[in-house]
Amino acid sequence: MEAKILEELKLDEKGLIPTIVQDVKGNQVLMMAYMNRDSLERTLETGYSHFFSRSRQRIWMKGEESGHRQRVKEILLDCDRDTLLIRVEQEVAACHTGHRSCFFTRYDPASNQLEEVEPLLFDPRKVYCQGG
Amino acid sequence: MEAKILEELKLDEKGLIPTIVQDVKGNQVLMMAYMNRDSLERTLETGYSHFFSRSRQRIWMKGEESGHRQRVKEILLDCDRDTLLIRVEQEVAACHTGHRSCFFTRYDPASNQLEEVEPLLFDPRKVYCQGG
Repeated sequence: MEAKILEELKLDEKGLIPTIVQDVKGNQVLMMAYMNRDSLERTLETGYSHFFSRSRQRIWMKGEESGHRQRVKEILLDCDRDTLLIRVEQEVAACHTGHRSCFFTRYDPASNQLEEVEPLLFDPRKVYCQGG
Repeated sequence: MEAKILEELKLDEKGLIPTIVQDVKGNQVLMMAYMNRDSLERTLETGYSHFFSRSRQRIWMKGEESGHRQRVKEILLDCDRDTLLIRVEQEVAACHTGHRSCFFTRYDPASNQLEEVEPLLFDPRKVYCQGG
Protein backbone atom coordinates (compact mmCIF):
# COMPACT_ATOMS: atom_id res chain seq x y z
CA MET A 1 0.00 0.00 0.00
CA GLU A 2 1.33 3.39 -0.93
CA ALA A 3 1.86 5.87 1.88
CA LYS A 4 -0.87 8.50 1.65
CA ILE A 5 1.62 11.30 2.18
CA LEU A 6 3.28 10.39 -1.14
CA GLU A 7 0.05 11.06 -3.00
CA GLU A 8 -0.29 14.47 -1.37
CA LEU A 9 3.15 15.95 -1.86
CA LYS A 10 4.01 18.42 -4.57
CA LEU A 11 7.56 17.75 -5.64
CA ASP A 12 9.44 20.43 -7.56
CA GLU A 13 10.62 20.13 -11.17
CA LYS A 14 13.60 18.08 -9.97
CA GLY A 15 11.41 15.70 -7.97
CA LEU A 16 12.50 17.21 -4.64
CA ILE A 17 10.78 18.70 -1.61
CA PRO A 18 12.54 20.95 0.93
CA THR A 19 12.42 19.36 4.37
CA ILE A 20 12.93 21.28 7.59
CA VAL A 21 14.33 19.23 10.47
CA GLN A 22 13.36 20.28 13.99
CA ASP A 23 14.49 18.89 17.32
CA VAL A 24 11.54 17.43 19.27
CA LYS A 25 13.33 18.46 22.46
CA GLY A 26 13.30 22.26 22.66
CA ASN A 27 12.06 22.79 19.10
CA GLN A 28 15.37 24.04 17.73
CA VAL A 29 15.54 24.09 13.93
CA LEU A 30 18.47 21.81 13.12
CA MET A 31 18.86 21.81 9.34
CA MET A 32 17.16 21.92 5.98
CA ALA A 33 17.67 19.30 3.31
CA TYR A 34 15.82 17.86 0.33
CA MET A 35 13.88 14.64 0.05
CA ASN A 36 12.74 12.88 -3.07
CA ARG A 37 10.11 10.17 -3.25
CA ASP A 38 12.57 7.34 -2.56
CA SER A 39 14.23 9.05 0.39
CA LEU A 40 10.85 9.69 2.00
CA GLU A 41 9.91 6.04 1.49
CA ARG A 42 13.15 4.96 3.12
CA THR A 43 12.54 7.38 5.98
CA LEU A 44 9.10 5.83 6.53
CA GLU A 45 10.45 2.27 6.30
CA THR A 46 13.38 2.75 8.68
CA GLY A 47 12.21 5.52 11.02
CA TYR A 48 15.44 7.43 10.36
CA SER A 49 15.74 10.50 8.15
CA HIS A 50 16.99 9.97 4.61
CA PHE A 51 17.55 12.78 2.11
CA PHE A 52 18.55 13.25 -1.50
CA SER A 53 21.92 14.91 -1.96
CA ARG A 54 21.82 17.32 -4.87
CA SER A 55 25.62 17.50 -5.07
CA ARG A 56 26.20 13.74 -4.90
CA GLN A 57 22.95 12.81 -6.67
CA ARG A 58 22.17 9.99 -4.29
CA ILE A 59 20.11 9.14 -1.24
CA TRP A 60 21.90 9.38 2.08
CA MET A 61 20.90 8.60 5.62
CA LYS A 62 21.67 11.44 7.99
CA GLY A 63 24.35 10.03 10.27
CA GLU A 64 25.53 7.32 7.87
CA GLU A 65 29.11 8.55 8.28
CA SER A 66 29.04 10.38 11.63
CA GLY A 67 26.59 8.13 13.43
CA HIS A 68 24.55 11.22 14.27
CA ARG A 69 21.23 9.84 13.15
CA GLN A 70 17.81 11.40 13.38
CA ARG A 71 14.94 9.26 14.65
CA VAL A 72 11.77 10.67 13.12
CA LYS A 73 8.99 11.24 15.62
CA GLU A 74 6.58 13.35 13.59
CA ILE A 75 6.03 14.29 9.95
CA LEU A 76 4.09 17.40 9.02
CA LEU A 77 3.35 18.96 5.67
CA ASP A 78 2.43 22.51 4.92
CA CYS A 79 -0.73 24.01 3.48
CA ASP A 80 0.71 24.10 -0.05
CA ARG A 81 2.01 20.51 0.20
CA ASP A 82 5.41 21.64 -1.08
CA THR A 83 7.43 21.67 2.15
CA LEU A 84 7.92 19.03 4.84
CA LEU A 85 8.70 19.47 8.51
CA ILE A 86 10.09 16.47 10.34
CA ARG A 87 10.51 16.47 14.10
CA VAL A 88 13.32 14.22 15.24
CA GLU A 89 15.39 12.91 18.09
CA GLN A 90 18.87 14.05 17.09
CA GLU A 91 21.91 12.05 18.18
CA VAL A 92 24.81 14.35 19.22
CA ALA A 93 24.51 17.08 16.60
CA ALA A 94 22.98 17.73 13.19
CA CYS A 95 25.69 19.84 11.59
CA HIS A 96 28.83 18.44 10.00
CA THR A 97 30.75 21.41 11.46
CA GLY A 98 30.26 20.09 14.99
CA HIS A 99 27.41 22.40 15.98
CA ARG A 100 24.05 21.10 17.19
CA SER A 101 22.23 23.06 14.48
CA CYS A 102 23.36 24.14 11.02
CA PHE A 103 21.92 27.58 11.87
CA PHE A 104 24.75 28.60 14.18
CA THR A 105 25.55 31.89 12.42
CA ARG A 106 23.57 34.97 13.39
CA TYR A 107 23.49 38.20 11.44
CA ASP A 108 23.40 41.28 13.64
CA PRO A 109 22.03 44.21 11.61
CA ALA A 110 23.15 46.78 14.21
CA SER A 111 26.84 45.92 13.90
CA ASN A 112 26.56 44.47 10.36
CA GLN A 113 28.46 41.43 11.60
CA LEU A 114 28.02 37.68 11.45
CA GLU A 115 28.64 35.84 14.70
CA GLU A 116 28.65 32.21 15.79
CA VAL A 117 26.06 31.63 18.46
CA GLU A 118 26.52 27.95 19.30
CA PRO A 119 29.32 25.92 20.83
CA LEU A 120 31.08 23.06 19.07
CA LEU A 121 29.85 19.68 20.32
CA PHE A 122 32.42 17.56 18.52
CA ASP A 123 35.56 17.88 16.45
CA PRO A 124 34.54 17.26 12.82
CA ARG A 125 38.07 16.12 11.93
CA LYS A 126 37.62 13.16 14.26
CA VAL A 127 34.13 12.26 13.06
CA TYR A 128 34.20 12.67 9.31
CA CYS A 129 36.70 11.09 7.00
CA GLN A 130 38.62 13.81 5.21
CA GLY A 131 39.70 11.56 2.36
CA GLY A 132 42.97 12.33 0.55
CA MET B 1 26.88 50.26 3.04
CA GLU B 2 25.89 46.81 1.90
CA ALA B 3 24.57 44.43 4.52
CA LYS B 4 27.25 41.82 5.17
CA ILE B 5 24.71 39.00 5.05
CA LEU B 6 24.05 39.79 1.37
CA GLU B 7 27.68 39.06 0.53
CA GLU B 8 27.54 35.72 2.30
CA LEU B 9 24.36 34.22 0.91
CA LYS B 10 24.30 31.66 -1.85
CA LEU B 11 21.19 32.26 -3.90
CA ASP B 12 19.92 29.52 -6.20
CA GLU B 13 19.82 29.69 -10.01
CA LYS B 14 16.63 31.78 -9.76
CA GLY B 15 18.18 34.22 -7.29
CA LEU B 16 16.19 32.82 -4.38
CA ILE B 17 16.96 31.43 -0.94
CA PRO B 18 14.56 29.26 1.08
CA THR B 19 13.68 30.95 4.36
CA ILE B 20 12.27 29.12 7.36
CA VAL B 21 10.13 31.26 9.66
CA GLN B 22 10.06 30.33 13.34
CA ASP B 23 8.05 31.83 16.18
CA VAL B 24 10.31 33.36 18.84
CA LYS B 25 7.70 32.41 21.43
CA GLY B 26 7.66 28.63 21.73
CA ASN B 27 9.85 28.00 18.69
CA GLN B 28 7.06 26.68 16.48
CA VAL B 29 7.98 26.51 12.79
CA LEU B 30 5.40 28.74 11.12
CA MET B 31 6.10 28.62 7.39
CA MET B 32 8.69 28.42 4.65
CA ALA B 33 8.97 30.96 1.86
CA TYR B 34 11.58 32.30 -0.53
CA MET B 35 13.53 35.52 -0.35
CA ASN B 36 15.51 37.20 -3.07
CA ARG B 37 18.09 39.92 -2.58
CA ASP B 38 15.56 42.76 -2.70
CA SER B 39 13.13 41.14 -0.29
CA LEU B 40 15.91 40.56 2.23
CA GLU B 41 16.98 44.19 1.89
CA ARG B 42 13.41 45.32 2.50
CA THR B 43 13.18 42.99 5.49
CA LEU B 44 16.32 44.57 6.95
CA GLU B 45 15.10 48.11 6.23
CA THR B 46 11.63 47.69 7.69
CA GLY B 47 12.07 45.01 10.36
CA TYR B 48 9.15 43.06 8.87
CA SER B 49 9.48 39.92 6.76
CA HIS B 50 9.28 40.32 2.99
CA PHE B 51 9.44 37.43 0.53
CA PHE B 52 9.49 36.85 -3.19
CA SER B 53 6.38 35.16 -4.54
CA ARG B 54 7.29 32.65 -7.23
CA SER B 55 3.69 32.43 -8.48
CA ARG B 56 3.10 36.19 -8.59
CA GLN B 57 6.73 37.08 -9.41
CA ARG B 58 6.82 39.99 -7.00
CA ILE B 59 7.94 40.93 -3.52
CA TRP B 60 5.29 40.81 -0.82
CA MET B 61 5.27 41.70 2.83
CA LYS B 62 3.83 38.93 4.97
CA GLY B 63 0.61 40.43 6.35
CA GLU B 64 0.18 43.05 3.64
CA GLU B 65 -3.37 41.83 3.05
CA SER B 66 -4.26 40.11 6.32
CA GLY B 67 -2.41 42.43 8.69
CA HIS B 68 -0.72 39.36 10.16
CA ARG B 69 2.80 40.72 9.97
CA GLN B 70 6.02 39.17 11.23
CA ARG B 71 8.40 41.36 13.19
CA VAL B 72 11.88 39.92 12.66
CA LYS B 73 13.84 39.44 15.88
CA GLU B 74 16.70 37.26 14.68
CA ILE B 75 18.26 36.23 11.35
CA LEU B 76 20.38 33.09 11.11
CA LEU B 77 22.03 31.44 8.15
CA ASP B 78 23.10 27.87 7.81
CA CYS B 79 26.54 26.35 7.37
CA ASP B 80 26.16 26.14 3.58
CA ARG B 81 24.83 29.71 3.36
CA ASP B 82 21.96 28.53 1.20
CA THR B 83 19.10 28.59 3.72
CA LEU B 84 17.88 31.33 6.07
CA LEU B 85 16.08 30.98 9.38
CA ILE B 86 14.26 34.03 10.66
CA ARG B 87 12.77 34.15 14.13
CA VAL B 88 9.76 36.42 14.37
CA GLU B 89 6.99 37.82 16.48
CA GLN B 90 3.92 36.65 14.56
CA GLU B 91 0.72 38.67 14.69
CA VAL B 92 -2.37 36.40 14.95
CA ALA B 93 -1.35 33.58 12.59
CA ALA B 94 1.07 32.81 9.79
CA CYS B 95 -1.07 30.65 7.54
CA HIS B 96 -3.64 31.97 5.09
CA THR B 97 -5.90 29.05 6.04
CA GLY B 98 -6.41 30.49 9.52
CA HIS B 99 -3.98 28.22 11.35
CA ARG B 100 -1.11 29.55 13.42
CA SER B 101 1.42 27.53 11.39
CA CYS B 102 1.31 26.34 7.80
CA PHE B 103 2.42 22.94 9.12
CA PHE B 104 -0.93 21.98 10.58
CA THR B 105 -1.23 18.63 8.77
CA ARG B 106 0.39 15.58 10.36
CA TYR B 107 0.98 12.30 8.62
CA ASP B 108 0.44 9.28 10.83
CA PRO B 109 2.31 6.29 9.37
CA ALA B 110 0.48 3.80 11.63
CA SER B 111 -2.97 4.64 10.26
CA ASN B 112 -1.69 5.98 6.91
CA GLN B 113 -3.85 9.06 7.45
CA LEU B 114 -3.34 12.79 7.33
CA GLU B 115 -4.86 14.74 10.20
CA GLU B 116 -5.15 18.40 11.13
CA VAL B 117 -3.43 19.08 14.41
CA GLU B 118 -4.09 22.79 14.95
CA PRO B 119 -7.21 24.83 15.57
CA LEU B 120 -8.39 27.64 13.29
CA LEU B 121 -7.55 31.05 14.74
CA PHE B 122 -9.48 33.11 12.21
CA ASP B 123 -11.91 32.71 9.34
CA PRO B 124 -9.89 33.23 6.17
CA ARG B 125 -13.01 34.34 4.25
CA LYS B 126 -13.24 37.37 6.53
CA VAL B 127 -9.54 38.25 6.33
CA TYR B 128 -8.54 37.70 2.74
CA CYS B 129 -10.29 39.18 -0.26
CA GLN B 130 -11.57 36.37 -2.45
CA GLY B 131 -11.76 38.53 -5.59
CA GLY B 132 -14.38 37.76 -8.26
